[in-house]
Amino acid sequence: MDATEFRKRGKEMIDYVADYLEKIEKRQVYPDVQPGYLRPLIPDAAPEEPEKFEDILKDVENIIMPGVTHWHSPYFFAYFPTASSFPALLADMLSGGIGCIGFSWASSPACTELETVMLDWLGKMINLPPQFLAGKDGEGGGVIQGTASEATLVALLAARTKAIHHVQSKNGKLTQGDITGRLVAYTSDQAHSSVEKDGLIAGVKVKQIPTDDNFAVCGSALRKEVDKDKAAGLIPFFFCATLGTTTCCSFDKLLELGPICNEEKIWMHIDAAYAGSAFICPEFRHLLNGVEFADSFNFNPHKWLLVNFDCSTLWVKKRADLTCAFKIDPVYLKHDHQESGLITDYRHWQIPLGRRFRSLKMWFVFRMYGVKGLQQYIRKHVKLAHEFKDLVLQDDRFEICAEVILGLVCFRIKGSNELNEALLKSINDARKIHLVPCHLRGKFVLRFAICARTVESAHIQFAWKHIVQLANELLKAKK
Amino acid sequence: MDATEFRKRGKEMIDYVADYLEKIEKRQVYPDVQPGYLRPLIPDAAPEEPEKFEDILKDVENIIMPGVTHWHSPYFFAYFPTASSFPALLADMLSGGIGCIGFSWASSPACTELETVMLDWLGKMINLPPQFLAGKDGEGGGVIQGTASEATLVALLAARTKAIHHVQSKNGKLTQGDITGRLVAYTSDQAHSSVEKDGLIAGVKVKQIPTDDNFAVCGSALRKEVDKDKAAGLIPFFFCATLGTTTCCSFDKLLELGPICNEEKIWMHIDAAYAGSAFICPEFRHLLNGVEFADSFNFNPHKWLLVNFDCSTLWVKKRADLTCAFKIDPVYLKHDHQESGLITDYRHWQIPLGRRFRSLKMWFVFRMYGVKGLQQYIRKHVKLAHEFKDLVLQDDRFEICAEVILGLVCFRIKGSNELNEALLKSINDARKIHLVPCHLRGKFVLRFAICARTVESAHIQFAWKHIVQLANELLKAKK
Repeated sequence: MDATEFRKRGKEMIDYVADYLEKIEKRQVYPDVQPGYLRPLIPDAAPEEPEKFEDILKDVENIIMPGVTHWHSPYFFAYFPTASSFPALLADMLSGGIGCIGFSWASSPACTELETVMLDWLGKMINLPPQFLAGKDGEGGGVIQGTASEATLVALLAARTKAIHHVQSKNGKLTQGDITGRLVAYTSDQAHSSVEKDGLIAGVKVKQIPTDDNFAVCGSALRKEVDKDKAAGLIPFFFCATLGTTTCCSFDKLLELGPICNEEKIWMHIDAAYAGSAFICPEFRHLLNGVEFADSFNFNPHKWLLVNFDCSTLWVKKRADLTCAFKIDPVYLKHDHQESGLITDYRHWQIPLGRRFRSLKMWFVFRMYGVKGLQQYIRKHVKLAHEFKDLVLQDDRFEICAEVILGLVCFRIKGSNELNEALLKSINDARKIHLVPCHLRGKFVLRFAICARTVESAHIQFAWKHIVQLANELLKAKK
Repeated sequence: MDATEFRKRGKEMIDYVADYLEKIEKRQVYPDVQPGYLRPLIPDAAPEEPEKFEDILKDVENIIMPGVTHWHSPYFFAYFPTASSFPALLADMLSGGIGCIGFSWASSPACTELETVMLDWLGKMINLPPQFLAGKDGEGGGVIQGTASEATLVALLAARTKAIHHVQSKNGKLTQGDITGRLVAYTSDQAHSSVEKDGLIAGVKVKQIPTDDNFAVCGSALRKEVDKDKAAGLIPFFFCATLGTTTCCSFDKLLELGPICNEEKIWMHIDAAYAGSAFICPEFRHLLNGVEFADSFNFNPHKWLLVNFDCSTLWVKKRADLTCAFKIDPVYLKHDHQESGLITDYRHWQIPLGRRFRSLKMWFVFRMYGVKGLQQYIRKHVKLAHEFKDLVLQDDRFEICAEVILGLVCFRIKGSNELNEALLKSINDARKIHLVPCHLRGKFVLRFAICARTVESAHIQFAWKHIVQLANELLKAKK
């Protein structure tokens, strides 16, 4: 395929994607396929000779689409949103076309520099304390990670290195292994499973702190564990606070937790993967109060800020903390400006070496929506969540299971877990809308997350009527 | 921006990307900008109101392009290639449009299933032993990772878990910390720096094995270290062999190393990040002989197989080895088919949770090129490397520093490191071509890597004439 054919096919693909997104509502949100459906539909091996683009595009519709869960359908209310916007799609095309690999400043200066500035832009949009910004000569700054799991891992590893150095500075005889075995990290009992996985990778203990009635970690709960562990000879070194938990969008109490972490020299990382985008609205910014105590902060514009996956933004107050943990410099990656202090080599800020030109997506989205457009988008989602919550509250067979703060509503039928499991199954079996569950204090709960860019009140109303109808059938059958 | 405007702007972007790639030769391959160039060119903060697409596209040309290192210029001979092809760009647009997150089978069945089958296709293309394929009921299989660094880390972590379980099964009193401190991993002294970084992350020792005259690790060298370490009470558990080292594209001797690893229960991982693509050609497949001894194998189609970044393919013989290391199952990620044994939840195969629909790129590229088209592409690059080598050999002021097997030529002026450093500097300062160096046994060496999809003999001839001219000036000035 040469550039001339690419011009033709590329424009066809633009139309295919535009059609897909414009008419997505008509597709069944969750597919009917069974495990193993795809293999019999395509050949056993790659073709020897080239095939035609038309045939491939036909197969996309006939083989791929029947197996796709349509995350951008306005009937998709599962997990958390994943972002999709036209400006981000355009920027991603450009990123693919440029196709540079930005592991060092020299490997494509624009790729590194736009990222640093975009992280400053976004940091300002959510009013991060200035220590987190790179500016012209700051000690902090931001970086795009692939996912929040990686951001937390990077923070955890930086904290581990820092803790080991600190302990060794007081007792030079202790080996890294001796110290690592005594390190202990903390997170909420509502935190995302990736924090536990990050602990496995880093080889350190991760303890879950019990949350309060609002599913939040409060200061006294952390204090209790820290004191107990210190008395047992362990070394508390890392706390991952969550703003907007995956289960029920609860918020840990940063203003209580931060001072404890600072006093105990515990690295405080904040994971606001979903909720972070809301902080661009002044009325939600208070949820981030206490970030000034943190060492690192992360959220995912690829969830709720219209920047397509992947774009998980991590800020640190001291970039040297990251680079100390990772810096390894072979000669084939050295370049003239490296030691100037002026530049950033993002390979020292992340697990992988290679990286795409992802900041273009942020640049396009921020400029084409403007801050006001992005704020409107967040507010619309929050409003729709409250609309759904109000519908639930009007039916006294149902209950709301956690405070609705942003775009997630946790609800259930007042009754047994079995009943609610049956309700969820009948919802997902009907394939008209898609939801996933969670457990809250042993209760099986349905999560209704406002997800799609194009979701409107009509979809919420439809979803609720549909849920009530299925619940009616279920309750009737039960009698 | 609505779908109608996206149709218009998307088609403009297609033309912009097509123009960029068609005329890339006319752009200066390596930019003139100095660190910090970009910040003064754009506002301090995101705009409040939306801006026009035209203005952004103008800024791409005026602000971004002057700072881009053009990896797809036919005058780019630095690092290793990064892939770019029109079919991959089309597939990536589709992937962005669908915008699903494939962390579990249920989150988008097509995303998982196409990946499993594409990894089987590619495994067959390079004639991997059948244990590495998923098939309908195999124990092995493949997964797309972001980068080779991550693939090696995943293998290392799986090996760490397996080794700890193995030691604990013999001595239940030993803690994970006790064992981790005694674990030792090995790799070549020519291996990529990411292996050392992966060791840092996993908290295990990584030792570099001295290579032979061909910069290859041979069996006796590994045996010597393993015996020494065992005698010292350490536990050898992981060896990362390299096929196609970054420094000089040397190949570790798998047929000698594999049996030692198997005998000593050392997990053998093979990193063929760059070279792996060549194994689709029967005449290069012998370089992979010995893979049958390995536990895991990785290479980067995003380097040399025309699949745009990111696409690093990892195969394992026993998928349970990966999932044992990572499996954590919260209720919001559970789904009906999970325990059927028929399905794959790729989140247990990788560090991040989220993942894009990347296998579409493989599917489009394999089908639109056909295996024959891909083989032709590899052969063209290897031929060009030999053409360059022959030019070097015709000038007896120069020497070739490592055997030219695939698309990399390591060369230098016979003389001091300072002279060669000066030559490289004058090459990169002239900005007509772009190269990076390496060190081989203390010698400063220039690496000439065949990179761009569109590079032809004329570019090689130009590059060599240019290098000779700069060398002449340098040698003249020196006299």
